[in-house]
Amino acid sequence: MNFLNEIAGRYPDAIPLAAGRPSEEFFEIEAVHRYLHRFERYLTEERGLSAEQAGRVFFQYGRTKGIVHELVARNLAADEGIDADPESVVVTVGCQEAMFLVLRALRSDERDAVLAVAPTYVGLTGAARLVDMPVRTVRSGPTGVDLDDLAEVLRRTRSEGLRPRACYLLPDHSNPSGLSLDLATRHALLDLAEREDLLLLEDNPYGLFTAGGERLPTLKALDTRRRVVYLGSYAKTGLPGARVGFVVADQEVVLPSGATGRFADELAKLKSMLTVNTPPIAQAVIAGKLLENGGSLVRANERETARYRENLRCLLDALAAHFPAGGPVHWNTPGGGFFLVVTLPFDADDDLLTVSARDHGVLWTPMRHFHDAPEAARQLRLSVSVVTPEQIREGVARLADLIGSRLPTAD
Amino acid sequence: MNFLNEIAGRYPDAIPLAAGRPSEEFFEIEAVHRYLHRFERYLTEERGLSAEQAGRVFFQYGRTKGIVHELVARNLAADEGIDADPESVVVTVGCQEAMFLVLRALRSDERDAVLAVAPTYVGLTGAARLVDMPVRTVRSGPTGVDLDDLAEVLRRTRSEGLRPRACYLLPDHSNPSGLSLDLATRHALLDLAEREDLLLLEDNPYGLFTAGGERLPTLKALDTRRRVVYLGSYAKTGLPGARVGFVVADQEVVLPSGATGRFADELAKLKSMLTVNTPPIAQAVIAGKLLENGGSLVRANERETARYRENLRCLLDALAAHFPAGGPVHWNTPGGGFFLVVTLPFDADDDLLTVSARDHGVLWTPMRHFHDAPEAARQLRLSVSVVTPEQIREGVARLADLIGSRLPTAD
Repeated sequence: MNFLNEIAGRYPDAIPLAAGRPSEEFFEIEAVHRYLHRFERYLTEERGLSAEQAGRVFFQYGRTKGIVHELVARNLAADEGIDADPESVVVTVGCQEAMFLVLRALRSDERDAVLAVAPTYVGLTGAARLVDMPVRTVRSGPTGVDLDDLAEVLRRTRSEGLRPRACYLLPDHSNPSGLSLDLATRHALLDLAEREDLLLLEDNPYGLFTAGGERLPTLKALDTRRRVVYLGSYAKTGLPGARVGFVVADQEVVLPSGATGRFADELAKLKSMLTVNTPPIAQAVIAGKLLENGGSLVRANERETARYRENLRCLLDALAAHFPAGGPVHWNTPGGGFFLVVTLPFDADDDLLTVSARDHGVLWTPMRHFHDAPEAARQLRLSVSVVTPEQIREGVARLADLIGSRLPTAD
Repeated sequence: MNFLNEIAGRYPDAIPLAAGRPSEEFFEIEAVHRYLHRFERYLTEERGLSAEQAGRVFFQYGRTKGIVHELVARNLAADEGIDADPESVVVTVGCQEAMFLVLRALRSDERDAVLAVAPTYVGLTGAARLVDMPVRTVRSGPTGVDLDDLAEVLRRTRSEGLRPRACYLLPDHSNPSGLSLDLATRHALLDLAEREDLLLLEDNPYGLFTAGGERLPTLKALDTRRRVVYLGSYAKTGLPGARVGFVVADQEVVLPSGATGRFADELAKLKSMLTVNTPPIAQAVIAGKLLENGGSLVRANERETARYRENLRCLLDALAAHFPAGGPVHWNTPGGGFFLVVTLPFDADDDLLTVSARDHGVLWTPMRHFHDAPEAARQLRLSVSVVTPEQIREGVARLADLIGSRLPTAD
């Protein structure tokens, strides 16, 4: 991603249809102070701590699994219909640390591998590289995961002498594809995981940002057989600058001692050697935001969700206005989230991006950075999270100029 | 360490001569708000950011290497005489993440090993386990590191076919031994590192807590040949609940591309796959404390340093009052820090600790948890960081009861 950051830095005035960070439109620093005060009141008034004890929560190291696990569980019940035992929750430094911990725990030697639905979020690929774990990609197909391909990749991976330990995916408004799994696919995937003795690593940073339709249940909400490790992030729904994520790991595992234990406790043991604790101050900020909104981030994000929804509609309208249906340029229609994917009749590579930023003033992300399949070479990701409708309209007009200048002319 | 936490939890009224966390005597939650406001003012008044730009610093993801690197460099100049280029600093989630990043970067395959002066801080051993790196221990001897043994361990490790990449140590008031390196040993160690082409990983959480004598220069302050990677922690001097540490890595390294680059940038690349950023909100808290104290944590910790100094003197006096000089029980006399080591004429193991906690009401740490050398079996660590002088006197009296009950009687 270094090249992408560098391009964005070199052309600061280009319209950022590449940036995936959340909208900062409604944020004020004062909110951080309010959240911290709210959490302090919760400790003293609802939890009955003395002022001295509450001070210690802010000041000292805390529990390795986190100090806001009960509020996380309450949030999952309120927003996701997930019934999580707080003791199954490990609060992490962003979702990225959760990915690392899970992969590190699943890797016992060089035969362990992870599958990932492609195109794959770079955080997963990075964590796998850090733990020296091979990643085998599964096609997403039109429904977000191609189950036949998943079965085939499992077979092929096993025949290589590898042990596929888990399959990673974002079932809702995936980054970068914008795809979501329909309900039937969710059930079929859970059945396949049970049949194949596979864990599913469900990453869900965008689930609550729907474009208008109904929200589908998460895999974890449908998971009656403890096949799903749920990776949560408050970066998009809470406050990115707090860097708080979590993992729900309610599986029973066999410990090195031979006894059985909870997967969350295994992860906590690894975390004690990696970061010791997630900063209690950062957890307190997220906790305060949760408390202020009755545990619901759906409620906390009403304005943001409306903004993303309007932006996505605006992006789809602008694309339709510039590129005729049935023409050489096409794109998908996500049910929500930040992203959609445009396919061009020629390569959308870093060179084209450089021209786009320099000569046309618009930034986007070549899909090649997420995926090495042949079709990815001609695809680009557009994001609507930090732009205004005006910027989207202007950005798509500029993109159309760029694309028009490269298309063969009719004469 | 799980057993130790469990014992402490089971006997909450026992005197905590085991706990190594810093004193919370002078802390108030309001300080967190003050620090955040101070950092906000710094951004707008000293750095010239608009209110909107300052908000973004608090709200959004930040630079992977950290957002307070310039303040860290200023702090190192003020308190440690270290002249660090801010671009050589990587701000981390506690010092623990820094240890992991450095070891992960130094490990290219199973032949890479790390040396550590024993008894060794468990955080280093844990990080090495996470990256599957063997640890070879070096004797501390009376001066904090036995240089002859270091040379011998290097030779032996190489003859095993391993590549010793670095040697880890705490040159000042080490945890758990309480030992410090004298100035001549510091220079000799740096010479040996140069001769043997070895990196030194200098960990310095306790350096500024002297018991009265002069502070010696850190290895990094004496490092003219870039042999030292400096591991810093604000857990003891800043605020543990912020979980902010850092590493100064100014070495030139050869990148996978064949070009040369800065070691700090290599570490940042790994960090982007591990935690992405250290929470900006947590960095802001530490930055505010630094700013409030003109960049000096020596100044910020005047009350704490006086408390630890008084406690250490009180502990030494109490030990001398209960155990005759030249007798079977002896201990070292640290120049500062939180810890000292007592040697008994019998094993100081987990069973004895259980008896001590249950029947005598005093907690300490068996040295066996840090070190598997034969002499460690009879040693225990005492800590003075979260107790009062009264608790220390009472705790040592209880320890003397326990020890007296186990000593052979004269008749």
